[in-house]
This record gives sequence, C-alpha cells and structure tokens, in this order.
Amino acid sequence: MSPDIPIAELASRAKDAARVLATVDTATKNHALVTAADLLEQSRSRLLAANQVDLEAAASVGMSATLMDRLRLSDSRLEGMASGLRKVAGLADPVGEILSGWVVPSGLRISQVRVPLGVVAIVYESRPNVTSDAAGLCLKSANAAFLRGSSSAINSNLAIAEVIREAYQQAGLPADALILLANTSHEAAAEFMQLNGTIDCLIPRGGPGLIASILENATVPYVIDGDGNCHIYVDASADLQMARQILVNAKTQRPSVCNAAESLVVHSAVASEFLPLAAADLEGVELVGDPEAVAILGTERISPATPADFATEFLDLKLSVKVVDSLEDAICHVNETGSGHSEAIITADLVAADKFCNEVDAAAVLVNASTRFVDGEEFGFGAEIGISTQKLHARGPMGLQQLTTTKYVVRGEGQVRG
Amino acid sequence: MSPDIPIAELASRAKDAARVLATVDTATKNHALVTAADLLEQSRSRLLAANQVDLEAAASVGMSATLMDRLRLSDSRLEGMASGLRKVAGLADPVGEILSGWVVPSGLRISQVRVPLGVVAIVYESRPNVTSDAAGLCLKSANAAFLRGSSSAINSNLAIAEVIREAYQQAGLPADALILLANTSHEAAAEFMQLNGTIDCLIPRGGPGLIASILENATVPYVIDGDGNCHIYVDASADLQMARQILVNAKTQRPSVCNAAESLVVHSAVASEFLPLAAADLEGVELVGDPEAVAILGTERISPATPADFATEFLDLKLSVKVVDSLEDAICHVNETGSGHSEAIITADLVAADKFCNEVDAAAVLVNASTRFVDGEEFGFGAEIGISTQKLHARGPMGLQQLTTTKYVVRGEGQVRG
Repeated sequence: MSPDIPIAELASRAKDAARVLATVDTATKNHALVTAADLLEQSRSRLLAANQVDLEAAASVGMSATLMDRLRLSDSRLEGMASGLRKVAGLADPVGEILSGWVVPSGLRISQVRVPLGVVAIVYESRPNVTSDAAGLCLKSANAAFLRGSSSAINSNLAIAEVIREAYQQAGLPADALILLANTSHEAAAEFMQLNGTIDCLIPRGGPGLIASILENATVPYVIDGDGNCHIYVDASADLQMARQILVNAKTQRPSVCNAAESLVVHSAVASEFLPLAAADLEGVELVGDPEAVAILGTERISPATPADFATEFLDLKLSVKVVDSLEDAICHVNETGSGHSEAIITADLVAADKFCNEVDAAAVLVNASTRFVDGEEFGFGAEIGISTQKLHARGPMGLQQLTTTKYVVRGEGQVRG
Repeated sequence: MSPDIPIAELASRAKDAARVLATVDTATKNHALVTAADLLEQSRSRLLAANQVDLEAAASVGMSATLMDRLRLSDSRLEGMASGLRKVAGLADPVGEILSGWVVPSGLRISQVRVPLGVVAIVYESRPNVTSDAAGLCLKSANAAFLRGSSSAINSNLAIAEVIREAYQQAGLPADALILLANTSHEAAAEFMQLNGTIDCLIPRGGPGLIASILENATVPYVIDGDGNCHIYVDASADLQMARQILVNAKTQRPSVCNAAESLVVHSAVASEFLPLAAADLEGVELVGDPEAVAILGTERISPATPADFATEFLDLKLSVKVVDSLEDAICHVNETGSGHSEAIITADLVAADKFCNEVDAAAVLVNASTRFVDGEEFGFGAEIGISTQKLHARGPMGLQQLTTTKYVVRGEGQVRG
C-alpha cells in the first residue's frame, strides 16, 4: 500500500472487497486465516526487520520504555499473532445465522439473517499485533478490514498487512479484504473518519486522546470502546473473606485494563471491620477516600479524595473508597460516577443482588465475582475486538457477532398490500 | 413545559424519570398508557382549541393545503391517537427479556437481558399525533421520551403532552417520563441534539432536511430513518402477471412513503413483453428510462432518464425503468443506486431468488412480494417508530425491541480471575 494512493481509491477498493467477502463460504475464510498464520511465521525475519526500523526511529525520538515494549515484535509475539488467527479460524462463523423467523397473516415468511457490516474501520495505537488481530476478526465476519495504525508502528504494520494480503490472495480472496492506510498524517486520519458511504462501522482501539478525536471528527457510524471506572460494592451482608479476594483481584491482577476496579464502595455496617482488612490486603495500592473512610483507616494509610477522584479511571495501583449507609446510596453513587462498564456487588442477600443488577446502568453487572471477568475471552466469545460502553448496536464485550448486522429476508407468492 | 426552562434542566429531569421507569412493572406502564388514551379522549375540546391556534397561525403564513391537513387534529385523529396508545398497552413488554444465557468454565452464570435505553429523543415534523405515538412506544419500552416537534404544531403538541403527563401522574409515574421541548428555536434544536450524557438515542422522523440537520449537528447517538429508493426487479423467469400486480401495488398503493417502489429493473429476456403491459397498468405514472426501455415503450410513454433519476426517491407517481441483461447486472444496479431500504425480486427461479437475497445489501430483501410490506405493522411488531436504513443497532422496521439495549448480568460465588 503506497502512501500515494488516494484515500478515496482505497475506500473504493475496500468496498469492492467487502462485496466479494459477503458471499464467501466459511471454509475459504478459514483457509485464508490459516494461510495467513503460516505466512506470518514464515516471514519472521522480514517482519522483525521492519519492526527494527520502527524501533530505531522510536529510540531516536526518545520513546518511553513502556511504549517501546508495546511496539516491539518478537518470536513469541509473532507466534501469538499466528495462533490468534488460527483460533479465529476455529470459531463459529456468525454469517448466515438466522436469528428469528416467522409467518405473518399476509402469508409472508420473514427471517432475520445475520450478515456482515461491510467495511469495518479500526483506528489503533502502537501495538502492531492489532493489525493481524483486527484483520482476522474482520475476515471471519466477512467484513473488509480498513485499518489505520499509528505512525510509530507504520513499517511493522505495513509488513504485517502485506504478508496477510499475500495469504488472502493465495487462498483465492481479494487482497483488499485488508487495507492498511500507509499515510499516517493527521489530515489522512480526519479524511478516513469521514468516509461516509464507505465505512460501515469505525472502532477505535486506544486511549482517551483517540476516543476524543473520534467523537470530534468522525462522521461515520462508530462503536466506542470507552473508559472503565468500575466499582466493587461490599454490601452489609457480604462474605467479607470473599469480598477481600475479589477486591484484590479486581484492583491488582492487571490494573492497567478497563475492567480493573477503580473504586471501592462499602456499606457503613461493615466498613470498620472490612476497610482495615482490605487496606492491609492492598499494600502498595494508594488509597483515597471520603471522610468516613479516612476516619476508619487514618491519614497515614488513606488520603482525602476529591470529587474528581471518584470519577477517574486510574489504570494504576490507586483506589478510591466511599462509605455508604444503604444499598440505594451505593447504586446512586455507582450510577453517578461510573462509566457504564462493569459494576460488582458482593452480597449474600438475594434482594440486594437483584436490586443492584436491575438498577445499576452498566454494560455488565456482577454478583460475587471480579470485574476482571468482563471480556470477550472470559465470556466465551473466543476473541474480542473491544468492550463497548455505548448502548446502541453493541454493549459490553464485542466478538464476531458484534461485527455483523442483520437483514430481513421476506418470501412470498405474489402478495400485494391491501 | 414553559419555554423558559433551560434545556439542561429538562435533560436532567428526563434522566431522573428514566431511572424510575427502568424498574416499573408492566401493569403500571399499561395502566398509564390506557389512562393517557382515556384522558386524550376526554380532553377533546381542549386539544382541538390548541390545534386551532396552530391552524390559524399556519393559514396566516400561507401554509400549503397538504401541510395544513397534516397539522389538523379531528375527532377521528384523536380517536386514532387514543387507540394507538391502547394498542401499545396490549403489546408484549420488551424489558427483562433474557436474550441468551450460559455458563462459562469459570463457573460464572451469564445472561444477556433486555433493558431500556434510558432517554430517547425524537425530533419530528408537523403531525401532532407523533407526540402521543412516540410517547406511548417510549413508555412501554421504559424509556423517558424527550420530544422536539415543529414550531408550527407547538400549541397542539404542548396540549397533547400536558394531557399525557397528567395521565402518567394519575397512574403513579413521573410526569417527566414525557418532556416536550417548548422552545422551538433552531438554537434550542442544536443544543438538544448535543445533549451527550443525557440522550441515549436520537431518532428523527421527518424529511431529508431534518435528516441532514441531524447528520450535521447531532453529537448524541442516533438511528436514522433514511430514504427508500426501492427497486422491483423482474427476472427472466418471473410470472409476469404476478410481477404486474406487485409493481402496481409497490408504486401506486401509497407513493409518498419510503417503502414504495421508485424503480423498475427488467431482464432483457422479458422486457419487450413486460414493459408495454406494465406501462398500461401504470397509467398516470410518469416513466423515465434507459435507452432500451425508451426503445421498447417509445418517447410518447417514457422519457430518457438521467443518472440522477435512478438515484432519486420520487415519493410521487413517477418511476425509473432500467433494462438489464443478467441477474448480476440487476444486483449491481440495485446496490449502486439503492438506499439500502427494501428491494424485491420477482422470479420463479430458486437460484436467482437466493442469489438476489444474498447479494443485495439492504435492510429487507423480498421475493415475490411488494416492497410495501416492509413496515413494523406488516412485520407483526404491533407498532413502529420508524424504519432504519443504517446498519448499526437497528436495521429495518423498528418496534419496541429496537428502543432497548442489553445488559450482561454475571452471577458467581466469589470467582476471581487467574
């Protein structure tokens, strides 16, 4: 993909490829995915060399060690990309599933059939493995993948995309089933996000800056993978031992991800017993809390929280703590400060569990389980393109099904409307 | 609703009402709908008087007879509004439906539950009956309705909204489950469309000008009820008698609606036999066609079509005609010129029917039936808020289900992620 090809031409090629993909059978798609996995493994030196160019450029501009690590390809990461493609080949094909079917009084037979979206655009940040992950999910769901990665990974991304395009051609599919934007300018990104009539769905994979840019610039339909300001609410009736284990897991098992807990809400009936235990469990985690929490734990262990703390996704070893006097107050606090991602209650009380599940407005509500379970793999979707925090189209973990739309097929014998 | 109340305050009230509605039981919602129907009937003179103010203002600015007719309330229209609300009361409640449920290897029990969207905004044009129709569908799906009608109908709309709000209060529900924007300025409309964080879904009901305004101004999530440039394709194997009946029905039964046919595509093998019959059936319908169609029918009956004609939703007694040499050409023409609404093939050939259904990219594809059947009532949804031509969230006729989202409920016994 030369950076000189106009975006409009790339868009048209993606659209043509999408038309072809829409009617390709499952075996051909799976064969293409396995071929791509094989070819990625066989192209090890070519891919690592391209990645080296990106790494050197990154080093020369002083990129941080964390970002350099994200950018780096290795044998094991290439194997991970290949095995990811093979895994997607093994998943059920979502296309053609009949969601429902019925006969209406006019005699028409109606069925609602799952079909691909068409052209799926994904804008992502520095990890080059997203190139193959996104390509695989799009191909299996019969969508053309139209990708825009970051400029820092452009050589790696282009090399990966070229290998996958070769594999698609070898498998008899159009290479344009995967198009990577080689022009990484901001102007090109803005033009990309406004390809109405071409891009059927845009999915960002990245941080708050990228999301803000989508919200500001995109005119095409999109699904936002938003913040996760997730709460663990420890109810008056909670098994405190269970609550401690879940809290530690949700906060510390992987603090940098969206389904990690950012806030602890405790019922006042158990706060003085629970908080000191939790604070000890969470050694190394910075705590900020409301006056009640500070009174219980003391200012050596916890600092006073600002209102902004309760609305912040720390993505770090930091936790806000709030003491409430009732389940109602807990629900109100979660709805006001949460981001609608994943919210958990720890309780032994059935009525409290049901009330929390019914009244908390989030993509996922959990009873007696860690928020860390809210992802496509743990939900059994086999793969995940992101976790939607919006309410339209897809809400929660997005797998292959969320990369599809539906079509009504109506069969008659000459019916006309009276 | 005074026009002086700031929009932000109205938004906050709608959001509070939505929280209450989310857990209201079905019987209470149905009782509120029936109460609203009764109260509309009992408020006949008050509603007609308010409507008279709008009609006089419209007459004084020279509104066309067609638009005046749309604006006019009458006894029978009020009865229609009341019976519409009673009908919605009789429909199944979509909220709480469990779409799927499963157990994952970690032992977590996951279910996907249908829940309300929250605040549904509807922007609509002159027909005042949309006020009660939209209110009813939103209430049954447990959403707060936040409405913005046209300035020409403001007195009628405010009177209808006040009556329904009174009924909600009598039934024990918050009056703010229905909020009508009394400020009909363009500035207020623009502010309304950008109430991010309040409006969960915006649905326009109106013409191309309104749709364009949404696309340009709205920052909240929306579902577009778009154009219907619908085709009838008469295949080489079609029963021509059936094709004639379907074509006449699709074109003339109600030419002003989005599921009416705007274009006829005929296979060249039957064009010379079919077109003269169709042209005679369609007496009074203006025809424009490609050179082949003009050669068959003659310039007295059909004019040469411009490329724009094939892309136009006439919404009138006008039809474009195209002759194709193959099913493939027909599919290509439909995909290139259609708006993705409803597309029909008339054929006796099973392979052709399946190919058309698979390859035409539209919300609904029909075999041997009139495109006029593509609406919520005919599909058995009981009521319709619109017909979506977009691919995300909802595609095709939208009933109560399309006014909902889902939530994952995850139940465990203390599971933590390894």
